[in-house]
Parts: sequence; C-alpha cells; structure tokens
Amino acid sequence: MPLVTSSTPALDARTRLARAAVEAFSTRGFHGTTTRDISTAAGMSPAALYVHHRSKEELLFELAHVGHQRVLDMVRASVATSDDPVEQLGTLVEDFVRDHALVHTGARVINYELAALSAEHLAEIVAIRHDIDEVVRDVIDRGVAAGVFHTPDPHMTALAVLSLGIDVARWFRDEGRWSPDQVAVHYRLLALRMVGAAGGLEARA
Amino acid sequence: MPLVTSSTPALDARTRLARAAVEAFSTRGFHGTTTRDISTAAGMSPAALYVHHRSKEELLFELAHVGHQRVLDMVRASVATSDDPVEQLGTLVEDFVRDHALVHTGARVINYELAALSAEHLAEIVAIRHDIDEVVRDVIDRGVAAGVFHTPDPHMTALAVLSLGIDVARWFRDEGRWSPDQVAVHYRLLALRMVGAAGGLEARA
Repeated sequence: MPLVTSSTPALDARTRLARAAVEAFSTRGFHGTTTRDISTAAGMSPAALYVHHRSKEELLFELAHVGHQRVLDMVRASVATSDDPVEQLGTLVEDFVRDHALVHTGARVINYELAALSAEHLAEIVAIRHDIDEVVRDVIDRGVAAGVFHTPDPHMTALAVLSLGIDVARWFRDEGRWSPDQVAVHYRLLALRMVGAAGGLEARA
Repeated sequence: MPLVTSSTPALDARTRLARAAVEAFSTRGFHGTTTRDISTAAGMSPAALYVHHRSKEELLFELAHVGHQRVLDMVRASVATSDDPVEQLGTLVEDFVRDHALVHTGARVINYELAALSAEHLAEIVAIRHDIDEVVRDVIDRGVAAGVFHTPDPHMTALAVLSLGIDVARWFRDEGRWSPDQVAVHYRLLALRMVGAAGGLEARA
C-alpha cells in the first residue's frame, strides 16, 4: 500500500492522519510514536492531530474500531453467501486471510497494540472481537451439528482458525513468494481440514 | 511467570535485567521503553544496564538470540524422539505450542519486536528462524515422500503450522480457560489434519 505523503492532497486530513498513524505505529509502536511524528508524516503542522483527535490513544481507538467493524461486517457477509457450513467456513477463511494479507500493516497495528487502549476503548474492541469469534464459532457449531465437521473441541478450533488468519498479518510480505489469493485459497483447505470437513479431505493433493 | 523484583536478590544482574526488559518491552514496546525503565524495574541504578549491555538494542538481541536458539534446540529434540514423520510432527507441534503458551510474554517480544534490531542482529535471528522452518519443512517433506502426509503445498503448510503456534503467544492468557497442555494436545491434532495425515483423520471425535 502506498505511504501517504504531502503530495497526496486529495485525501482529507483525517485519512492522512490515519494512514500516517498506521505507518508510525507499525514501525515504532504506539508508545514509541509521538503525535508530532504522526502530524509531520501526514504533511501537517505538529499539533494538527489535535484538531481531529483528542489524543494519540483516540486515534488508535478509531483505527481499531473501524478496522474491527470492517472485519466483522466482512465475515458476516462471507457467511451470508451460502447455507452450507462447509462453503460458509471456506469463504469466511478465504476472505479473512486475503484481507489480513492485503492490509497486513494495519492489521498488525490493531491486533498487537490493543494494550495501549484505555479500559473503556479496549472493552469496545473486545466486544467486536467477540462478535467475530461468534460468527466463526456459530458456523463450526452448525457444521458439527449437521455432521459435516468433526472436532473434539469446536471452540478451540474456532479460535485456532482465526488465529491462523491473524498471524498472516505478521509474516506476509508484499514482495514475498505468495500472493494474497494464493495464501487465501490454501488456508481455506487448511481450515476445512482443521474442522474435519469432508471437503478438506477430498482436496488431498 | 513471576515478575522480577528487588526482593529476588538470588538472581544475577543479567537475569534480572533480561526479565525486566521482557516485561517492559511487552508492555510499552521496545521504542516506548528506556534503559532507565529496565534498570529501575530490575531494582538497579538507572545506568546499570550499560554495565552488562552496550545498548537497549543489544539486550533485545540477546533475548531474541537465546530465545530462538532455545526453540531451535527444542524442535530438533522433538524430531529426534522418533523416526516416524507423524510422531515427529505431532511431538514438535505439542512442544512448540506448549512452550509458546508457557512463555507467552517473552515469545511475543521476540516475535513482534524484531524490526527494532540492527540489520546485522536481525540477520542472525532470521538465520535461526530459517533453521527452525527447515526442521518443520523437512519433517513434512519426508511425510509427503513416505505417503503419510498429503498437501498441495508442503512449504506453505509448514509456515502455517509454525504460524499457528506462534500466534498462541499473542492470545494465550495464564488465567484463561485452557492450560498449555490442553492447547498443545489439540494443536497436535490440528497440525496433523493440516498436513492430511491419517493420524489426524482417525482422531475425529
């Protein structure tokens, strides 16, 4: 993804600040970044951040809130594409993994810097994460009930499927050997195998 | 794991500094932590860190080097327990996952703060990580060659198996619902399913 610079005036100030914050937080961490760093990287005056956000923490919260809500909406849309738990889980994992590969820098920030949020803000993000977990758990529970998934611990398996996708944001590199689509398609197979789906077994190479 | 305090004088200074650094880096990140923070948390004078380490970066490197070498030795020992790729991968995943749950704070630091290392130090850590990857790839390649594993992309699958284990350090909580052993045993099953091993399929609940 292109970095924001002062030569991209078409972007509004909030967007420039948001993009500059993601880059700064991913490079030096939340605590290693100053509001001046962010404003300057956004091509604005040192105090410009305060025109739009009450604090650096509020900016992180906005990034985390928008990012988590977007993922929740995405996984709900994935599940809505079918009535079959195998298809639902496969589509969900493909979408989730592709997204974490494509926006890996932003995903790292909002997954690894949560401890910097205030208790109130953290609670709001944890609630959305819980909703995301619930979507995955629900698909797996329905697959188990329908006899198409077989797992001794559906909830730990749901956690593991999401965990595998989240870690893509840590290791994925734009210049690496695999495209986001290639990773997404392979991880769909891995997730279906993790839940013991026949689809995962038939897809043996 | 207990935090180090000045009431634990039996630990030598390097160990106290190392433990204080892990706690500080995990809480505020490498860039958000000062050498004074670390020395003070270790119950020592503000400049005490420099008696033992040339810089904060050298201390992070030592933590990362010791931690990665320990994991490399561990996975090699896991593989040495058997000649059967199914047993080898199962034991490796159990050991790797249990370890990342037990020392989750340290594992987070040395997996997520690598960008703070100098180019030379990062290259040394990347080399050890490559050796760890090789151990896993080799087991999976031998399982595929022996016809006991079935996967369309052994190398992406090896990456995914390690990735799943690494992310345990992000989400595991000492006060959570699962013990390190419970996670390790379930993840053994998940990994064997990911590689399409008969052991993973027979273990259907």
